[in-house]
Amino acid sequence: MPNENSHRGDKLAPAEKARRLKLIIAYDGATFRGWQSQASSDTIQDRLENAFARVAGRKIRVHGAGRTDTGVHALGQCAHADVSATRLTPVVWMNALNASLPPQIRIVACRFVPMSFHARFSARGKIYRYRIATTPTFLPLDVDRAWHVISPLDDDALRAAAALFIGTHDFAGFAANRGQAPESTTRTIRSVRVRRTAGMTVIEFDGDGFLYKMVRLMVGAIICCATGKETIEVVQHRLLRADGSGARLVAPAGGLTLVRVRY
Amino acid sequence: MPNENSHRGDKLAPAEKARRLKLIIAYDGATFRGWQSQASSDTIQDRLENAFARVAGRKIRVHGAGRTDTGVHALGQCAHADVSATRLTPVVWMNALNASLPPQIRIVACRFVPMSFHARFSARGKIYRYRIATTPTFLPLDVDRAWHVISPLDDDALRAAAALFIGTHDFAGFAANRGQAPESTTRTIRSVRVRRTAGMTVIEFDGDGFLYKMVRLMVGAIICCATGKETIEVVQHRLLRADGSGARLVAPAGGLTLVRVRY
Repeated sequence: MPNENSHRGDKLAPAEKARRLKLIIAYDGATFRGWQSQASSDTIQDRLENAFARVAGRKIRVHGAGRTDTGVHALGQCAHADVSATRLTPVVWMNALNASLPPQIRIVACRFVPMSFHARFSARGKIYRYRIATTPTFLPLDVDRAWHVISPLDDDALRAAAALFIGTHDFAGFAANRGQAPESTTRTIRSVRVRRTAGMTVIEFDGDGFLYKMVRLMVGAIICCATGKETIEVVQHRLLRADGSGARLVAPAGGLTLVRVRY
Repeated sequence: MPNENSHRGDKLAPAEKARRLKLIIAYDGATFRGWQSQASSDTIQDRLENAFARVAGRKIRVHGAGRTDTGVHALGQCAHADVSATRLTPVVWMNALNASLPPQIRIVACRFVPMSFHARFSARGKIYRYRIATTPTFLPLDVDRAWHVISPLDDDALRAAAALFIGTHDFAGFAANRGQAPESTTRTIRSVRVRRTAGMTVIEFDGDGFLYKMVRLMVGAIICCATGKETIEVVQHRLLRADGSGARLVAPAGGLTLVRVRY
């Protein structure tokens, strides 16, 4: 039986030991066209794959924990990539990749993980943060980093609406269609934390997973309740009916940050 | 004796009652080439004067409390401008100006003040804030908004160096020359507050006035002490000698924000 190396014409690379790198990535979403690779190649995944190509001298695919839309930021997006088991340590990889990336994308941590780890399929949950600027004027340093809401926010309504989403629900009423065949739309939200200071309201969602545009649709509904444009009952009904038809408010992307992926 | 209106050929406009507007202005310094008007016309003063011209239909000069360099931000820069005493209220002025300004510049408050008020000469003090990012990696959302310092900061040295500047001193050792004839270089700093959280150190200076690049030179010296590159004694000596010659570290512009002008 011929061994692998005797097949000169086939597509197998010479047996090469691969190792899997787990990356924690922060980015300023205002600069790019979202996470996922596109023809325009101005996405975060494209920039990461370009950086890997420069460091490794060959195309390496980067698998993210999830896509983020244009304008959405990250403090702790997660991804994995398979590299040859050279003598490069994870810290050397991190520094080399960062040197090839624009300052708007940074690898903040990097380590080898078992080949069974998958950034997307191993994820057990995510934490998202949403910032709402409540200053009378939208301050320049909050532009692209918060949603400016001028109407006064009723604190009781805001907190009651936020609490509606805690627990296990069919979130079809708070998801947008990405054009794919619908999978299960049931998700569990462990907590929704609201922190309010002068001029800024921050809502943090911790859940086992989030559907497409789900955080921004929940924030839209919470703010509609807090500004008196919708009642808690209407939002509760949409959650129970699991129906995404009808007018819904999607909070703007700039207010959203992927804080952490839990494994 | 002929009255004013009989002089057809002179440069006086027909007697028109003027009112003085006081403006509080916030801006993202990363977008513009500083405060002061330039041929390139991409400064904050230029943008404000363009907005006034669009609203008033004529050139109106905007007088700032002080110039800020390229990259320096403001939450509460102050300026005044003289407008005709039309029926436009300050709120209408504010909204009309904001509609003609990019989102990176916002008038956050506006009111009529006596003609004796002068944004620069009436100022009794200013508050500046400087942000130092101490995370291992410079996070994308801090880029252009903080100085990234990787070396560990010794808390005692940092606070001792910051305290050196409180009081009345000749700050010639902490000023850059703008090419003008030197005026007095004595200033009084009322307080220097240091706040430290995980990943961010903020130093806030409250003083009766600041020389050119003075805050950034003080921050440079404080950080040199905190990282052990300079001793407190060397910095103290430079302050006592009032001598700006020799190597000095200027903290980068992006970390600096003009918080408020006191009148």
